[in-house]
Amino acid sequence: MVDSIIVLSGGMDSAVLLAQTLKEGKTAQAISFDYGSKHNDRELPMAVGLCEEFAIKHQIIKLPFIGELFSSSLLTGGEEIPDGAYGQENMKSTVVPFRNGIMLAIAAGYAESVQAGEVLLGSHSGDHHIYPDCRPEFNNAFAEAVNLGTDGQVAIRFPFSEMTKRDIGDLGRTLDLDFAKTWTCYKGGELHCGVCAACDERKEALRHPEGLDVTKYLV
Amino acid sequence: MVDSIIVLSGGMDSAVLLAQTLKEGKTAQAISFDYGSKHNDRELPMAVGLCEEFAIKHQIIKLPFIGELFSSSLLTGGEEIPDGAYGQENMKSTVVPFRNGIMLAIAAGYAESVQAGEVLLGSHSGDHHIYPDCRPEFNNAFAEAVNLGTDGQVAIRFPFSEMTKRDIGDLGRTLDLDFAKTWTCYKGGELHCGVCAACDERKEALRHPEGLDVTKYLV
Repeated sequence: MVDSIIVLSGGMDSAVLLAQTLKEGKTAQAISFDYGSKHNDRELPMAVGLCEEFAIKHQIIKLPFIGELFSSSLLTGGEEIPDGAYGQENMKSTVVPFRNGIMLAIAAGYAESVQAGEVLLGSHSGDHHIYPDCRPEFNNAFAEAVNLGTDGQVAIRFPFSEMTKRDIGDLGRTLDLDFAKTWTCYKGGELHCGVCAACDERKEALRHPEGLDVTKYLV
Repeated sequence: MVDSIIVLSGGMDSAVLLAQTLKEGKTAQAISFDYGSKHNDRELPMAVGLCEEFAIKHQIIKLPFIGELFSSSLLTGGEEIPDGAYGQENMKSTVVPFRNGIMLAIAAGYAESVQAGEVLLGSHSGDHHIYPDCRPEFNNAFAEAVNLGTDGQVAIRFPFSEMTKRDIGDLGRTLDLDFAKTWTCYKGGELHCGVCAACDERKEALRHPEGLDVTKYLV
């Protein structure tokens, strides 16, 4: 038995969530998903490293059917990821249909199997309207469905739902999290590209202009 | 583009749902899941055969992590499936945690990817209380979450929710469905065992005592 299953992408939000959950004295396991995105190859090793560092059990679930059957520019084999801000129309090509719903459903089933009472996801208030399965109304409806579908055994919780990404960055710093051990860039190169929408937000969240961001960017 | 994605197990309910949907003049694709159950080896070839017969596109999604990580007597490697009626306490061992939630989430993402407006599942009024993710209140909550999480693009529907399994059997007969091309038994032998809870219900649904059931049973 374990208290919490954390959906761990290897990005900064879920890394802070992991550090924070353990700091609270909970026992935790992490679950990550390899769904064929262009940046999975960069994110997942970060998730592995974090779980080694925090000495917690880690499951990586492969979902090859998403890369093979679903359409999105975020996926290997999809069109090129556009540059620019998330709000722009062209960023809609990065939606992976119902990705969060699929990940949360699997995490819920796993949690019930190992008798963990909660699944934690690091959604925050700045998650983008272009992703319908990241919006608060979806999160609440899905949590209710999981509550019913597991007979009240598993709660889905979003502890950062009222925080901004910068709040999360600041929290991670107070927890001494090394953000160099997390990955954000959508493009999946050797270094963070520094210009995609995801990098833009990371820079702001980690106070790059103030010189506090330890990330090495290409630009 | 296609009208409907049908979750097709290869059992009698989803086979009737497929026949009925096509009869209504809709275009359809089927999606099946190989999640490591003891009877997947018997069910899935039935699903393949039905899709060939009806000449529709068919995706079989492998979910090996369920067999490897989840606990249930229904899974290969799990304990033995108990005999007896579904209502009994011991039948709870056959619950695969959040199985329907996982299947429906993936079907929803696939539907959005191929621009199908609905996912159909053959749940019926006799689905058992021991499976929390088959209950009507779960179905409704999950459908609402999918509606929100796909921005209204995908509806999850349960056309048989008010019918009994026998109603479904009778409907299939009016559609000339050959029930010998469907599989129900939980035990996954060469023939339907004829004594497990699933076979019991199939016999009743297909009017076995009245001599109308074409299934070959071991007993």
